[in-house]
Amino acid sequence: MSETCIFCKIIKGEIPSKKVFENEEILAFLDINPITKGHTVVIPKNHYETILDLPEGEMQKFFSALKKVASMIKKNLDADGFNILQNNFKAAGQEVPHMHFHIIPRMEGDGAIKFPPQMDVDSEYLENVLKEIKS
Amino acid sequence: MSETCIFCKIIKGEIPSKKVFENEEILAFLDINPITKGHTVVIPKNHYETILDLPEGEMQKFFSALKKVASMIKKNLDADGFNILQNNFKAAGQEVPHMHFHIIPRMEGDGAIKFPPQMDVDSEYLENVLKEIKS
Repeated sequence: MSETCIFCKIIKGEIPSKKVFENEEILAFLDINPITKGHTVVIPKNHYETILDLPEGEMQKFFSALKKVASMIKKNLDADGFNILQNNFKAAGQEVPHMHFHIIPRMEGDGAIKFPPQMDVDSEYLENVLKEIKS
Repeated sequence: MSETCIFCKIIKGEIPSKKVFENEEILAFLDINPITKGHTVVIPKNHYETILDLPEGEMQKFFSALKKVASMIKKNLDADGFNILQNNFKAAGQEVPHMHFHIIPRMEGDGAIKFPPQMDVDSEYLENVLKEIKS
């Protein structure tokens, strides 16, 4: 637990939330500024800053819950699909430094999320990037 | 394996790819039209259409590999952060019906991914959505 973390305060009940799912390790609650109807945030109750801090031993339970919540949302809201989005570190748009996954229900043609522009690159470019990653 | 799936063909080596990481269960390769430098796609070798089809028994290994690849990319490309994005079903922008996670490295201020517009809603709206999800 972090004293200043807004998500830890939600877990402790110091800040109210609309709870979609909860067990001993995980909490899922509605985003108060949803991208689409049913937009849900899934967090581990332990305070980890990013996915790089999530211990191996907690992965099974966390992602099992994530899948369960996504399935429930899709079914009960009759959604046509959903995006899973997770931002790590400020540069990636992470606003709360407590690891969280967004589940964003989608309806055919809603235009809610546009896939960002992609680069046109060649094999040599990719080979150089690969070398750098594997260095 | 699916005969027609482009990712299954990459796994079988019928289509070349720049492999970032590979083990018995998982393959990670560079996206050929990257959003940012180092944009990587992580897939299970078994053909599952969406995350809803990923068996419980494969979760630990899959997400452990995802974290490992993300960590390697961030470190070796000296990235400031990274996004994890996963699209389920066509309505969510899934183009290849073989479950895949995007790891998108980010640099401070790169503007590569803009968080989509969010709705301004009240507690009553959220309460009604919650009822629907839990119905």
